[in-house]
Amino acid sequence: MTSFEEAETEETITCLHMMFYHPSQLEKQVFRHLNFYRREQLRADEVAKFGRDSNICHYILVDARVSRIQFSLQLFRKLSSSELCFEIKNMSKRTKLTVNNLELGYLNKIDLPFKCMVGFGDYQILMHVQEGESVDFFETFLELSQVSLLQEHYLPSLQPIPECGISPSLFHSQAISPVEKPVEMDENEL
Amino acid sequence: MTSFEEAETEETITCLHMMFYHPSQLEKQVFRHLNFYRREQLRADEVAKFGRDSNICHYILVDARVSRIQFSLQLFRKLSSSELCFEIKNMSKRTKLTVNNLELGYLNKIDLPFKCMVGFGDYQILMHVQEGESVDFFETFLELSQVSLLQEHYLPSLQPIPECGISPSLFHSQAISPVEKPVEMDENEL
Repeated sequence: MTSFEEAETEETITCLHMMFYHPSQLEKQVFRHLNFYRREQLRADEVAKFGRDSNICHYILVDARVSRIQFSLQLFRKLSSSELCFEIKNMSKRTKLTVNNLELGYLNKIDLPFKCMVGFGDYQILMHVQEGESVDFFETFLELSQVSLLQEHYLPSLQPIPECGISPSLFHSQAISPVEKPVEMDENEL
Repeated sequence: MTSFEEAETEETITCLHMMFYHPSQLEKQVFRHLNFYRREQLRADEVAKFGRDSNICHYILVDARVSRIQFSLQLFRKLSSSELCFEIKNMSKRTKLTVNNLELGYLNKIDLPFKCMVGFGDYQILMHVQEGESVDFFETFLELSQVSLLQEHYLPSLQPIPECGISPSLFHSQAISPVEKPVEMDENEL
C-alpha cells in the first residue's frame, strides 16, 4: 500500500470567513497587518483575538481607536449536538460590539450566528461560518471589501467562497457588481 | 491630600474558589504543581487552563491520565445584567467533564453555577464563586481536601472563605470536621 492509501481520511475544517470594511481603510491602512485571502489554521483550543496589541492579538488592527483587545472568537460544540460553532466576546471597555442588531458590552458574549454582521466604531465585518468536521483545528479566511457592507443589497448577494479561496481581483469585481436579479421567464418557456 | 486619600477606591475582585480531591493525591502527588491557599490574580481576558501541559496550562496536574488541556475557565458578563460569571469548557477528547450532574463532551461549555461539583476521571473539584466588582481581573483560590467531596454531608457544610485566605491547618480541621447540625430549639425558647 502507498502512504496515500494508508493516510487517514482527510477531514474538512470549519472555516470562519470574515469580510472587512472601514471607511478610511485606504488612507489609514488600518488593515495592513491582516493577511487577506489566505486560510489560517488555529488549534481548536486557541482564542482568535482581534485588536491593537500585537503581543496578545494575532489579528492586528492598526488604529489608535481600537482597543488592546477588541473582541475574541473561539470554537465550541453545542451541548445537544456535535455541531461546531463560534462564540464572540467583546473585550473592549470603550466600544460596544454589535452582532446583527444585538449590542454587546464589555465581556458580554454570544454564540455567533452562522452569517452575521459584526460592528464596532466604523468597522464592519461580515462573518459567515463554513462548516467542517475537524474537532482539532479551525480556520479563518479574511477578505477586504471596497464598499460598505451596510448597503442593503449587499448582504443577500454574498456568495459562498470556494474552498481554495478566490483571487482578490475576482473577489472585488464580485463585491462591487450590481445585484443579480432573477430573470423573469415567460410561462411558455417553462 | 495623601496618596491614600487620592488613590482610587479599591475594588473587590471576583474569586473562584476551588477545592481539589483525588483518591491517590498522597501517593501520586498529582497536585504538586498547584499553589494552594494563595490567591492568584488573572486578567479578565485570560483563560485559566487546567491540564498536563505546562506550556499551555497555568494550573498543572501531574498525571498521565490527564489531558494536555483538561478544561478551561473564563470570565464573562451576562448580557442582561452586569453580573460576572465563569464559563467552563471541556478541552479533553478522552474524558467527560461533569458539572453537577451534567456531562460535557469535548469542546462543550456551560456557564458555571455559583456553587458546583466538577469532576473528571477520579478528580473532584468543588467550585464556588465569590462575587466581586472588578472587571479588569479575577482571582483563583485553590484548596486541598483530605476527604472525598462526594460525601453527601460535605457539600452543605462548605463555608465561605474569608478574603485574606485561611491557613492550611485551619482549613483541614474544618474540612474533616463533622457536619454541624442545626440545634433543635424548644418552642418556648423562641
